[in-house]
Amino acid sequence: MTIVVSNKTSGLREVDAPHSLVAHFGADHPLQMDAGGCLDQWTIAYQTYGELNADKSNAILVCHALTGDQHVANEHPITGKPGWWSSMVGPGRPIDTDRYFVICSNVIGGCMGTTGPASLNPATGRPYGLDLPIVTIRDMVRAQAMLIDHLGIETLFCVVGGSMGGMQVLQWVASYPERLFSAMPIATAAKHSSQNIAFHEVGRQAVMADPDWRNGRYLEEGVIPTKGLAVARMAAHITYLSDEALQSKFGRKLQDREARAFTFDAEFEIENYLRYQGLSFVDRFDPNSYLYVTRACDYFDLAADYNGSLAQAFRGVKARFCVVSFTSDWLYPTSASRAIVHALNAGGASVSFVDIETDRGHDAFLLNIPEFIATSRGFLDSAARARGLPPAKPRAEP
Amino acid sequence: MTIVVSNKTSGLREVDAPHSLVAHFGADHPLQMDAGGCLDQWTIAYQTYGELNADKSNAILVCHALTGDQHVANEHPITGKPGWWSSMVGPGRPIDTDRYFVICSNVIGGCMGTTGPASLNPATGRPYGLDLPIVTIRDMVRAQAMLIDHLGIETLFCVVGGSMGGMQVLQWVASYPERLFSAMPIATAAKHSSQNIAFHEVGRQAVMADPDWRNGRYLEEGVIPTKGLAVARMAAHITYLSDEALQSKFGRKLQDREARAFTFDAEFEIENYLRYQGLSFVDRFDPNSYLYVTRACDYFDLAADYNGSLAQAFRGVKARFCVVSFTSDWLYPTSASRAIVHALNAGGASVSFVDIETDRGHDAFLLNIPEFIATSRGFLDSAARARGLPPAKPRAEP
Repeated sequence: MTIVVSNKTSGLREVDAPHSLVAHFGADHPLQMDAGGCLDQWTIAYQTYGELNADKSNAILVCHALTGDQHVANEHPITGKPGWWSSMVGPGRPIDTDRYFVICSNVIGGCMGTTGPASLNPATGRPYGLDLPIVTIRDMVRAQAMLIDHLGIETLFCVVGGSMGGMQVLQWVASYPERLFSAMPIATAAKHSSQNIAFHEVGRQAVMADPDWRNGRYLEEGVIPTKGLAVARMAAHITYLSDEALQSKFGRKLQDREARAFTFDAEFEIENYLRYQGLSFVDRFDPNSYLYVTRACDYFDLAADYNGSLAQAFRGVKARFCVVSFTSDWLYPTSASRAIVHALNAGGASVSFVDIETDRGHDAFLLNIPEFIATSRGFLDSAARARGLPPAKPRAEP
Repeated sequence: MTIVVSNKTSGLREVDAPHSLVAHFGADHPLQMDAGGCLDQWTIAYQTYGELNADKSNAILVCHALTGDQHVANEHPITGKPGWWSSMVGPGRPIDTDRYFVICSNVIGGCMGTTGPASLNPATGRPYGLDLPIVTIRDMVRAQAMLIDHLGIETLFCVVGGSMGGMQVLQWVASYPERLFSAMPIATAAKHSSQNIAFHEVGRQAVMADPDWRNGRYLEEGVIPTKGLAVARMAAHITYLSDEALQSKFGRKLQDREARAFTFDAEFEIENYLRYQGLSFVDRFDPNSYLYVTRACDYFDLAADYNGSLAQAFRGVKARFCVVSFTSDWLYPTSASRAIVHALNAGGASVSFVDIETDRGHDAFLLNIPEFIATSRGFLDSAARARGLPPAKPRAEP
């Protein structure tokens, strides 16, 4: 079932390596969509690492964030960069691929091989564009659950994710409580705030303002709204970093010069950095996908599906939890994690909550922050003992 | 010297009323620019309210913020809305036009009658576009000082302003300390932070990404990059409001409907609000002006002109100060005002500092917040007594 991700459907560029696994589902396994209707031809691209044990009790599902993908621990096929969570996932890492069977799949609405707006609509033979139904976090998780079924796994040892990945973790807890032994929602929120929606709306408007967007039909017209998408990424990127992190990393430092040149060029290092973030993003991400994944977050309000009670969403949950927030994260601040913890407690769950002191902002969850790594390792080791998994291989200290 | 502001130069639309006063300066009064060179034909449009007393000791200069203008206390000629600071300026208001002679001028680089990028370049007969030198806060203040000279006023009773207006106040203190009796820098900072620059850069890139921007030559080509400017305004607007204000005003409320419609339309009220902010802004503001005024803020770093010492910038200042910040302002947070206060104290100035508790965010300075109004009134009343101005007229309580 190994299939080369040609990535042709994304219209970005062809990718020959590395391969992703792709599961194809047909009319016998339609994907029900919250927005109505279903997809009866759909695919989900994923990577796995490590080996599933005999009793299938060591599987960890990693859920990716907004613009992440399945390449959590291998070189990215487009950028050539290391996997986006190499500090957390790999041999001897907290999510230890010598010990656990790790699965990471591209979300529905994404652009790395899973069905998204750049995929061909079987009804028309053209890319979906905006004809793909709006995707929700619950749709993403429903697709993941079908992938897990497909892999013959009944219960996940853990489901882990940060940011939008953390929303998927929370949705797993609410939708499939009996299929989880443990869960780690990181730097996330149980609903998108007004400010969160506002920033996403700016990004979408930036994409849609680009005349090359062509009402979402750009692939057929041989153009890509890269300028709009770059602006969207720049705005979003500011929210991933704290004021302090920007100040300490860039401050008011000038780019390659001693004195102010008084121009509209990227005079300040922060400007150069943001422009680079915008330009490099458009090489790997589909503009319509950006609309879909931001919209999925905006619609996320887990309590709303349970009469407005988050505790109700988590009622009777047996899994053990580690909730992690970062003190300088202003996108999904500590208060949002605290609300999750309170609801889990009210639901009677076993929860450890760690608010990690750092000035790195929201992006801290992607960084090699010792306290975060140690927290994750400690939680997973303890859960593994409770699950009866063998201890980690002894490793030489690095 | 009363001249109709035809506003033709801004390319936006003609305005017949109300009139602004416009001072024209020629080669005998060139405006030196920090970026190099000078303007030897330039104009400054301004409004005045109240009457200058015989010894010219009751003049207050109000400095406007990024996208403000001279219409501080009269109906806006384009939008028809009340003056942008009607809560603060007018008969019986803290800046009492029955008592003080109030001046507010459009900044250099602006688009409401003062020389800016939409003005005709006398050297070419075409709009300046990006041929206008980059404008700094010091250039704006230099022009204001020449206007004050022109009006025959030696010493201002007070210079007041919020946000970018507050930067001008600080620059007045540093550049013309002997010409001020008192000063009120509000919700401002002595330098732009990395995050501040980042948000402005996103806005500029949004304007420049619009193909109708035409490298700044859009006026000659009969187009206006309104889509890019609207996106810029939307992104900026988020920074003017606090997370709490957005949450309490909009939360996750849906627009005109009971249930989610699952579309990319403005489903949430916050989306509708932001889109409105973007669309209405482009009717009254010139896109190139937006580039110039944001850039002026980015370059602002008052201490940098004084060997990195803000206290040095304020050395020997005799004026009395009222520094005001707002607890939920994350654009120019309380810590930025505190740094100003520390430097003023180190410079030996008399300073009162009020950090006003509010959830309204940066925009609080434009709102009718009782503690803010009372603070301003108290400070100005006390300064007026010290200046020997007659007391306020007795007024019936409203």
